Amino acid sequence: MTIGERIGFVTLATTDSYAAGALVLARSLRQTNTVAGLVCLVSSSISEGTRTRLESEFDEVVVVDVLNSNNDAMLTLLKRPELGVTLTKLHCWKLIQYSKMVFLDADTLVIQNIDDLFERDEISAVADCGWPSCFNSGVFVFKPSIDTFNDLIEFAKNEGSFDGGDQGLLNDFFSDWSTKSIDRILPFGYNVHAAATYAYVPAFRRFKDQVKVVHFLGSTKPWSSKNPPQGEFSQFWQLWWSLYESNSKQNSKNDSISQKTSS
Amino acid sequence: MTIGERIGFVTLATTDSYAAGALVLARSLRQTNTVAGLVCLVSSSISEGTRTRLESEFDEVVVVDVLNSNNDAMLTLLKRPELGVTLTKLHCWKLIQYSKMVFLDADTLVIQNIDDLFERDEISAVADCGWPSCFNSGVFVFKPSIDTFNDLIEFAKNEGSFDGGDQGLLNDFFSDWSTKSIDRILPFGYNVHAAATYAYVPAFRRFKDQVKVVHFLGSTKPWSSKNPPQGEFSQFWQLWWSLYESNSKQNSKNDSISQKTSS
Ligand SMILES: O=c1ccn([C@@H]2O[C@H](COP(=O)(O)OP(=O)(O)O)[C@@H](O)[C@H]2O)c(=O)[nH]1
Ligand SMILES: O=c1ccn([C@@H]2O[C@H](COP(=O)(O)OP(=O)(O)O)[C@@H](O)[C@H]2O)c(=O)[nH]1
Ligand SMILES: [Mn+2]
Ligand SMILES: [Mn+2]
Repeated sequence: MTIGERIGFVTLATTDSYAAGALVLARSLRQTNTVAGLVCLVSSSISEGTRTRLESEFDEVVVVDVLNSNNDAMLTLLKRPELGVTLTKLHCWKLIQYSKMVFLDADTLVIQNIDDLFERDEISAVADCGWPSCFNSGVFVFKPSIDTFNDLIEFAKNEGSFDGGDQGLLNDFFSDWSTKSIDRILPFGYNVHAAATYAYVPAFRRFKDQVKVVHFLGSTKPWSSKNPPQGEFSQFWQLWWSLYESNSKQNSKNDSISQKTSS
Repeated sequence: MTIGERIGFVTLATTDSYAAGALVLARSLRQTNTVAGLVCLVSSSISEGTRTRLESEFDEVVVVDVLNSNNDAMLTLLKRPELGVTLTKLHCWKLIQYSKMVFLDADTLVIQNIDDLFERDEISAVADCGWPSCFNSGVFVFKPSIDTFNDLIEFAKNEGSFDGGDQGLLNDFFSDWSTKSIDRILPFGYNVHAAATYAYVPAFRRFKDQVKVVHFLGSTKPWSSKNPPQGEFSQFWQLWWSLYESNSKQNSKNDSISQKTSS
């Protein structure tokens, strides 16, 4: 990135549970001394108290439409109610006050500084463990742009999503991800899928120092229970809880360097 | 490849059960009208009858020494102590009568012609679903070379294998696979991991026509039972059996597959 360009991490929370994830994610990012701004997209359904807590951790909390019947263009999509949350994620492309951003799912935890991601181009992401010629949409580098946002919405309307979620949509939209450039295929360490079914334990141990982002994908999230599932990822589950229970005052956003770079 | 250069597919079978896999693999390759030669590496422990059957399906059957990683600790982690023998795979680099080859595990099944793989360079392979910055060593393009073979053996002796099998070794040896060139990262369709735990069903359905090689990795192999596991891959399991039972004069007789696998 060039000096003076604004960079930021952005996540999304449409419920109070996912907001807990977003909160911990922000704390984990602060601990890595990131110089980027932190943005949380929320829906208006989030409680007032939750929103206040998010505001104390993030630089910006942006309320976005759930893209429902208010919007004529979305009427077609109402036949696909599961796409609601998906489309809400797409709002991140509208954050054009930033020149480059990294989207992180609210169920991710950052272990090591990942500011080097801002040197990558749209769209850079990690292979999905289920079908590695697709990328996992829990972590991706993108360039905010109203044009791209509109194209994405149009694409969603016309094509739908092959998996009913944002991942299917984004993979069909950015369909050359796996063939265009090696630089767009991020090392697995940037989005380590913490799901026991995927674990290749010897590789996990061999490349442990390369784990930068842990992604609690699947239906069991850290906020659902204090007891970690068995296996290699229990340590990260515990780390999630210790960050969740830590006092937010020590994570003052006023110390963040993001404001220095945002001028 | 250039006209006049020899190309070949090679697999490995150190037991009569894996030889059943190799047999079916050869038949599946013939069905795709490949122009490449078919080579099977075997250990001397393979029965005479099995070897004769392999000779009727492959262009060459080559007897090799069994190499073993002796890395019991790592194999226990993988819960697959039998995989030490997979280092025997390294012998394929000695087939210098071929200028370019594709190694295929004996538990793979070729669905569509894959001769285009011979246009790729060493080492080209598909991402492993467990840690996608590693490649899965069930399918890979390589260039036979005695120098490379010697380097691999030396490397194995000095460094061992982080997973106790060939995959760990080959990934450490060809450690720039995931960063060097996009052309070396083969589409997932060239090595679709048929393990229920890995399935991303919507992607499987979306990209079904791109499935070229199915890999029955894990501990449950087609030859272990005629009953396919539930799920998307049952059709390929059945295809495996129909190929196994085709031309049955050659392989039924008195030695049923269950007798072979129980030994
Ligand atoms: O009800 C929901 C579901 C999802 N999300 C957001 O969408 C992301 C993707 O969903 P999830 O992480 O549950 O999917 P997975 O990674 O398990 O496939 C979450 O991390 C949240 O940021 C949300 O805000 N509310
Ligand atoms: O006892 C054995 C084990 C393995 N193999 C060969 O090594 C490959 C790798 O082993 P396997 O496919 O069982 O490993 P997986 O793909 O399940 O990890 C097999 O396909 C065979 O070609 C063999 O010949 N004998
Ligand atoms: Mn997620
Ligand atoms: Mn295999």
